[in-house]
Amino acid sequence: MLDREYKGQVCSIARALEVVGERWSLLIVRTILQGKVRFDDLKETLGITRSVLTTRLQLLVDEGLVERHQYSDRPPRFEYRLTEKGNDLWPVLLTLRGWGDKYYAGPEGPPTTTEHLGCGGGPDDHLICDRCGTPLTLANTRTYATRSMVENLPL
Amino acid sequence: MLDREYKGQVCSIARALEVVGERWSLLIVRTILQGKVRFDDLKETLGITRSVLTTRLQLLVDEGLVERHQYSDRPPRFEYRLTEKGNDLWPVLLTLRGWGDKYYAGPEGPPTTTEHLGCGGGPDDHLICDRCGTPLTLANTRTYATRSMVENLPL
Repeated sequence: MLDREYKGQVCSIARALEVVGERWSLLIVRTILQGKVRFDDLKETLGITRSVLTTRLQLLVDEGLVERHQYSDRPPRFEYRLTEKGNDLWPVLLTLRGWGDKYYAGPEGPPTTTEHLGCGGGPDDHLICDRCGTPLTLANTRTYATRSMVENLPL
Repeated sequence: MLDREYKGQVCSIARALEVVGERWSLLIVRTILQGKVRFDDLKETLGITRSVLTTRLQLLVDEGLVERHQYSDRPPRFEYRLTEKGNDLWPVLLTLRGWGDKYYAGPEGPPTTTEHLGCGGGPDDHLICDRCGTPLTLANTRTYATRSMVENLPL
């Protein structure tokens, strides 16, 4: 856990932010959810240094959100999988994305969309399927980019 | 907005975190939602310095989440009210609180609870009333502390 930055705050929001309030942590969880599970893929997708990524991943491992698995002996290579505790941040990320979509999506519209598998509906503001009324979860949806997630460089 | 910390990330989660990912911002919004709207009350509740609070509030004002109102001329005193954009973070905070309650509440249980007005039910994991099925919002609920929000100091 990070230092008790919010000393004296008996509040689950404060506790949660001690773990995921660090600026990169939620983006790392988001990127693993997108299927980028290998260290080098994470590093490239996030565009951060090896040392920052290592530190942030270690915090997530220490807090039980992420598990580290070696997938190659020579050379040693690792991938990172979300635990149930990590996957349980899915609604937090979707709700935060909803707010970002509403206020920051711009004229091109939201860059990612989430679809109810087998139905095609999407999440309403309570993460209920807007077509069939099923409560949406990580397991019954898929999320995909509606356009490139990496900005075009200026010509 | 903060510096574009997440350059090249076309993602509403990244955009949202550029505004509310700074460590104190969501806690300030939470505290205003709790009715602590005056500068000195915010400062005391959060236990942060005048200068940090001033900077963070200014970011929230610049981004349109918070409005500043003068409530006294002599001495000049200000209070801070959430705009619709700020209030729209309510589901983000509740969802984050749900995650924190699940993993960090400890034996005493969650320190705050949210009640559906006139019904007495509480939010399920989709912020739907677990008693009557109504989608819960800031307007149709109240949230209160189940025990002191400030930790007891050791004897």
